[in-house]
Amino acid sequence: MASISLQTSLTNNKAEIKVGDEIPVFDFKEDSAGETKPLNLTGKNIIVGLPGAYTTPCNEHVPGYVENFDKFKAKGVENIYIISVNDAFVTKSWKKHLGGDNLHFVADDTGHITSSLGFLFDASGALGSPRSKRYVLVTEGHKVLSIAVEDEVPKVTVTSADSVLAKL
Amino acid sequence: MASISLQTSLTNNKAEIKVGDEIPVFDFKEDSAGETKPLNLTGKNIIVGLPGAYTTPCNEHVPGYVENFDKFKAKGVENIYIISVNDAFVTKSWKKHLGGDNLHFVADDTGHITSSLGFLFDASGALGSPRSKRYVLVTEGHKVLSIAVEDEVPKVTVTSADSVLAKL
Repeated sequence: MASISLQTSLTNNKAEIKVGDEIPVFDFKEDSAGETKPLNLTGKNIIVGLPGAYTTPCNEHVPGYVENFDKFKAKGVENIYIISVNDAFVTKSWKKHLGGDNLHFVADDTGHITSSLGFLFDASGALGSPRSKRYVLVTEGHKVLSIAVEDEVPKVTVTSADSVLAKL
Repeated sequence: MASISLQTSLTNNKAEIKVGDEIPVFDFKEDSAGETKPLNLTGKNIIVGLPGAYTTPCNEHVPGYVENFDKFKAKGVENIYIISVNDAFVTKSWKKHLGGDNLHFVADDTGHITSSLGFLFDASGALGSPRSKRYVLVTEGHKVLSIAVEDEVPKVTVTSADSVLAKL
């Protein structure tokens, strides 16, 4: 029998990315399970990682970015990417549920993006698999300008839209 | 670094369950990521396995069971369980989205239920991980009375509510 498992093994988790590092040009899925495209960042961008679509804290976390999108744009942000270890059907429906058409919802269904940034953690008790820590990266091109990571994954403090806006 | 991965490795997949076999008393999650309970089946029950919440075919598959629930009850069915390899936040929101309060949505977040029944398959291309084939079991207590499995996972033919009802 073939041995194929989700690729989000914690053994694949790289060291957590640091300020000054370059984000890899990873392939990602957005709104479609069958289509991948490379992430090519230009200008200032925000990457928000979180544990799971439809989870209670994430349902409260993302709307801050949806509602304050114009304020981010006013501070020169090109795009905001919401990345979670979920499949594209789930992220697409979640985006619709949250009215998040102004954001990019990235389906890291294999976990390869999150592990390449070093943000996987063991969420198997609640969610069945490794998932993403709650973090925010501010980038210029692919270079990481600042990083905020929650000490406790359910909390939304340093990664809230208001906190990130205040530091831009 | 710890080696923790989703438990839905295809190497754990048992042989596909057969008519006359007993379904194991597995622990399952329903509507809550933090609470598990044992599956204790009495009387006639229907178990519907499918690849993923919010996927296009599954969004069309489940409503047949929601809408025809009274017809199943009239034929002596106690409960209908919808099982997918998704976390409980996703299955709970999907249940609400489909208006499926009359069904039980089981979050097989580690894949341990699906693998114990032998129905895991490699869905990593589209969904990032092993998922469940599309199947229906009709049971009396824990004994399997009949099985329907789709040859092609996206299809809903032998596993449709109408097909299953016609054979009860």
